[in-house]
Amino acid sequence: MLTIHGVPLSVHTRKAIVTAILKKVDYRFEVVIPVIPGNPPANWSTLSPTGLIPVLQDGDFTLADSTAICLYLDRKQPAPPIFPEDIRDYGRVLWFDAYAGGTIFRHVVHPLFVQTIVGPNIRNVPTDRAVIDDVLTNVQPKILGYLESQIAGKYLVGDTMTLADIAIVSNFIVYQYLGFEIDASRYPKLAGYLREIAATAVFQRALADERPFVDQMGLKRGFLSAA
Amino acid sequence: MLTIHGVPLSVHTRKAIVTAILKKVDYRFEVVIPVIPGNPPANWSTLSPTGLIPVLQDGDFTLADSTAICLYLDRKQPAPPIFPEDIRDYGRVLWFDAYAGGTIFRHVVHPLFVQTIVGPNIRNVPTDRAVIDDVLTNVQPKILGYLESQIAGKYLVGDTMTLADIAIVSNFIVYQYLGFEIDASRYPKLAGYLREIAATAVFQRALADERPFVDQMGLKRGFLSAA
Repeated sequence: MLTIHGVPLSVHTRKAIVTAILKKVDYRFEVVIPVIPGNPPANWSTLSPTGLIPVLQDGDFTLADSTAICLYLDRKQPAPPIFPEDIRDYGRVLWFDAYAGGTIFRHVVHPLFVQTIVGPNIRNVPTDRAVIDDVLTNVQPKILGYLESQIAGKYLVGDTMTLADIAIVSNFIVYQYLGFEIDASRYPKLAGYLREIAATAVFQRALADERPFVDQMGLKRGFLSAA
Repeated sequence: MLTIHGVPLSVHTRKAIVTAILKKVDYRFEVVIPVIPGNPPANWSTLSPTGLIPVLQDGDFTLADSTAICLYLDRKQPAPPIFPEDIRDYGRVLWFDAYAGGTIFRHVVHPLFVQTIVGPNIRNVPTDRAVIDDVLTNVQPKILGYLESQIAGKYLVGDTMTLADIAIVSNFIVYQYLGFEIDASRYPKLAGYLREIAATAVFQRALADERPFVDQMGLKRGFLSAA
């Protein structure tokens, strides 16, 4: 059986987990919290050369990048695919996955997560409200506006769930766990899209598994019951 | 014909170009230098939602992420492939591509490039020697040591050139353009590997095309004649 190492509420760990659930690939989940000193197992630097999560273990084979893991799972268990057949749609899914990790996570979700959770709860550094305000006021509007312009159906690309949906929505799950909300009057398509994808059976299963962590950390789950 | 927009000496633009050359895909190159205000064309924000390079244009279709571009080219022109058949090797190539962008570029090449070129030559900000020293002394050894431990043949994964080689070596081309050198006594496999991949016909063609830019910017090309 596969093992996925990571934190249940991590954006990137969730990509691997949702992909495994979608494909009905059996996996064991092993909690590793790199931001807590001393938490990772002794062989962590071998499992994850960067120290980052998630890591996939498949026998003696390991992979330590969420996109690599999702594409590996897509080859290992091709049905249902997480990429459309059409070559342009395939490219667009890869683009949205890159945009999710390089732009949404890096410039919005990660700084918000650091300011609201990692700083005050783990590193004993108080929240810097100016960083949060900068993200919400200066960084986020362009990103949310771009996504709003790209949504034309239930799924971001094609007519089934792809890695694009998995990667983008995984980011906004954390965003909402932290108590931030998408303004549905300003971004109606994006707000509806996020609600619909979060309500799919695949995401519901992943989110149910995360619930103990979410509750323990006092995060917000209200946005899910609205789905 | 395809158009690749970017800067000839950019790590990520070179990934797209080398992949196109390897696959003998015809392309037109369009110089766009986002760090120079006013340089990008008027429709740049449509071509590149993040403003980053490279961007691939294929008719009315555009893609603005180097990994997405390389994988798109791999579907468009499957031979020669940039991924091995073996599923684990496929995963490892994706891993090295992610490591190249997320770790080598972000933590080594990008800060060195900013301190030696973008700051002093474009933004009129003097080089901060402490940043360079920190990269060379504290950041780089773990990364170079890891790569040294992973090299077992001419190519990083399998026995042909893959996206792993394209992405990793593209980073170290820029590193060496900037005048930094891999210590061959400390990292003999890595130094030999970089020399051999840079000496392949595919890389030689890409590097020859870059030469006018490299000369114009006063960068170092000596490491190439040693190959």
